[in-house]
Amino acid sequence: MRFVDLIEKKKKGYEHTKEEIQFIIDSLMNGRAEDYQVSAWLMAVYFNGMTIEETANLTQAIINSGEIIDLSPLRENCAHIADKHSTGGVGDKITLILIPLLAACGVPIAKLSGRGLGHTGGTIDKLEAIPGFKTDLDIEELIEKVKDVGLAIASQTKRLTPADGKLYALRDVTATVDSMPLIASSIVSKKIASGADYVVLDVKYGSGAFIKTPEKACELAQWMVDIAAKLGKKFHAAITSMEQPLGRAVGNAIEVIESIEFLKGTMTSDIKELTFEMAALTLVELNKAGSKEEAYQMIQNAVNSGRALDFFKKLILSQGGNVQVVDNYRLFPQPKYAERIFAESDGVISNIDAYKTAYACKLLGAGREKKSDSIDYSAGIYLNKIYGEKVSRGDVVATLYANDEGKLSLAKEFMKDAFVFSESEQPVRSLIYKVI
Amino acid sequence: MRFVDLIEKKKKGYEHTKEEIQFIIDSLMNGRAEDYQVSAWLMAVYFNGMTIEETANLTQAIINSGEIIDLSPLRENCAHIADKHSTGGVGDKITLILIPLLAACGVPIAKLSGRGLGHTGGTIDKLEAIPGFKTDLDIEELIEKVKDVGLAIASQTKRLTPADGKLYALRDVTATVDSMPLIASSIVSKKIASGADYVVLDVKYGSGAFIKTPEKACELAQWMVDIAAKLGKKFHAAITSMEQPLGRAVGNAIEVIESIEFLKGTMTSDIKELTFEMAALTLVELNKAGSKEEAYQMIQNAVNSGRALDFFKKLILSQGGNVQVVDNYRLFPQPKYAERIFAESDGVISNIDAYKTAYACKLLGAGREKKSDSIDYSAGIYLNKIYGEKVSRGDVVATLYANDEGKLSLAKEFMKDAFVFSESEQPVRSLIYKVI
Repeated sequence: MRFVDLIEKKKKGYEHTKEEIQFIIDSLMNGRAEDYQVSAWLMAVYFNGMTIEETANLTQAIINSGEIIDLSPLRENCAHIADKHSTGGVGDKITLILIPLLAACGVPIAKLSGRGLGHTGGTIDKLEAIPGFKTDLDIEELIEKVKDVGLAIASQTKRLTPADGKLYALRDVTATVDSMPLIASSIVSKKIASGADYVVLDVKYGSGAFIKTPEKACELAQWMVDIAAKLGKKFHAAITSMEQPLGRAVGNAIEVIESIEFLKGTMTSDIKELTFEMAALTLVELNKAGSKEEAYQMIQNAVNSGRALDFFKKLILSQGGNVQVVDNYRLFPQPKYAERIFAESDGVISNIDAYKTAYACKLLGAGREKKSDSIDYSAGIYLNKIYGEKVSRGDVVATLYANDEGKLSLAKEFMKDAFVFSESEQPVRSLIYKVI
Repeated sequence: MRFVDLIEKKKKGYEHTKEEIQFIIDSLMNGRAEDYQVSAWLMAVYFNGMTIEETANLTQAIINSGEIIDLSPLRENCAHIADKHSTGGVGDKITLILIPLLAACGVPIAKLSGRGLGHTGGTIDKLEAIPGFKTDLDIEELIEKVKDVGLAIASQTKRLTPADGKLYALRDVTATVDSMPLIASSIVSKKIASGADYVVLDVKYGSGAFIKTPEKACELAQWMVDIAAKLGKKFHAAITSMEQPLGRAVGNAIEVIESIEFLKGTMTSDIKELTFEMAALTLVELNKAGSKEEAYQMIQNAVNSGRALDFFKKLILSQGGNVQVVDNYRLFPQPKYAERIFAESDGVISNIDAYKTAYACKLLGAGREKKSDSIDYSAGIYLNKIYGEKVSRGDVVATLYANDEGKLSLAKEFMKDAFVFSESEQPVRSLIYKVI
């Protein structure tokens, strides 16, 4: 087999065999294919696509390129190894809430998460805003902690799906990121290599997501569900709007605080809609609840009883964090400066642009551009008013936090622009577009 | 400007500006673009194509990447600097005949030609079959010789269009060779960098050419004529069949001998059709003849009078070759072995497959696979019978020459397969499909 012939084959629109896909990934990994050949093949894939069968084979080859985590010791507690994944959004703290919720409902989760390379940090960065919280666990520790306390969250090892790392690095610089089979195989391979056999996905669309339309998000979700099924795994997907930030907090420490508030019972409605739905899908699929209604009741009880919050505390304690943060938010890293944005007239909030919010947040220091950048955990934006809420002239609509006054004034200009006001009442907004 | 954005632009089907094309070629040459980015861009060009305007800009950028030969001193002899080019075929000795013919009709030619990397040698290899013939001339020598004797043929310098060399090397291993704008810009850039302002092209199609259909050959020809026009140059193109070998000889020395025979007046009809047409197009365009008819008469006279042969002799003498070869073919390198193929029944030749002939010829040692391979000038195939000719059982239809008996018997098997016999008379075959 010659790599150039496989480029030609995909260029002409033919389907690769399983052996050919394996050869492509092997050649990428052992250096027998040159990067310029792989990138030409990627561009041919962009134009001619791949079938579900081909993409499932690609996914499996990517999984096989690295370590595959064996979470089967956890089957003693629960027959299925469940996981969740989000394609990424602004103010997305769902993992921080969903994992303790599920643990409280009898679903142990050993979660591997990533750091953020964007406008705010990833789940791991957010957790590290808790003083002392350690995310650098090896797999044995991860499993041990889940067995001990019912949940654990660790940072992803680089030994998972190294082929995806190589492919993504090439795609990023050759304008071949936006290909459904390539995106789908990248996500699904990482979830399966992480040991999951059930995954609930949150596929986001809108100004704050890399997918802009609900139709494209549905397409990607369907790809992932179909590929996973081909590989013997069950995936569900919620397709959700990321036109506006999720909840009221955007940043790192500030999002952990909002998560704790949620678990204490102060639930922003959009976060509630999404976490409850994702948790309910999981509980029904794993036979922990007989119906969606029963699941919703279980979840509500887990919050009301304080059990979900207890599991969050167990998570912090188990991973070395200062559990007192739950009752004293001043133990989180504190920003030096705060700046408020005021409403200039009476009205109703009709939109808060997610992208502009994220950009402002990055200006404040809450994200990183390069892997080596450090994150300011205390920086962020709190939305005192969100979609549908009435404001009077002079009301505070947002508060910005930073450790640098220059950054603060720059971010304020951007953030002002994110708000859209209307004179009339706004319709109730549903975050979830569809469930697949 | 970022290279990745230009890949994205072409991927989306937009047209590059002149500045963007220049940036692409500059980045290729100065190493600011990585090969994997260039190959992704090439694949995007394959799928989304380029406009004539874009391709002309690409061609100019490729020309500017290296040396541009200034043949203006030759304008004293003829207002236009003429050249010819063939896309390559089996038994294609047209340059060897056309250049002396044009010189005899008052059109001086300073020709740069390539070596062959295929089934037989290129023009330079064929000329080097003449003992002592030197093709390694610098540009000053080339011009001097044209001024002295009216014609000269030198091997191409590597300093011409280096960007094309880099692009082609990448295209070859990334399945992006077969793109009209890329093929057209590659050919046209080399001709213009070689100093020509008028070029007559021979665009071949068929089993012995890289283009398989007349329609595709017409498309490529039109591209080249249009690009050249955008760059202020006049190109003509003859679209010709390469289903069967050109003439009776395929090899190196053996093709020079057929060329000499032609100039002595023994003209195989297909070679005559093509050389006369290409010469006539040139003579009319350069105002050396008032009409095609007058041009054909001039060309016939140049042969009949022996003047064309004289110019071939001048060429040999001027470049250090042994001119006695013209009268004594045994001064060419001689093969140790010859093997004949006989007709197995009575009939008429209805086809001689050009690809199979070429393959047999390569087996005999007449071509090279790697640049470093040496060519056996004496190896080759003589077609004792060609298309439309009647044969009786036992007639010799072809003679194979080689220096190795093993190669000979292997090649014979292939060559037998090349012949197709018919029971009925064959229609007269025209080589030229169209002139653009």
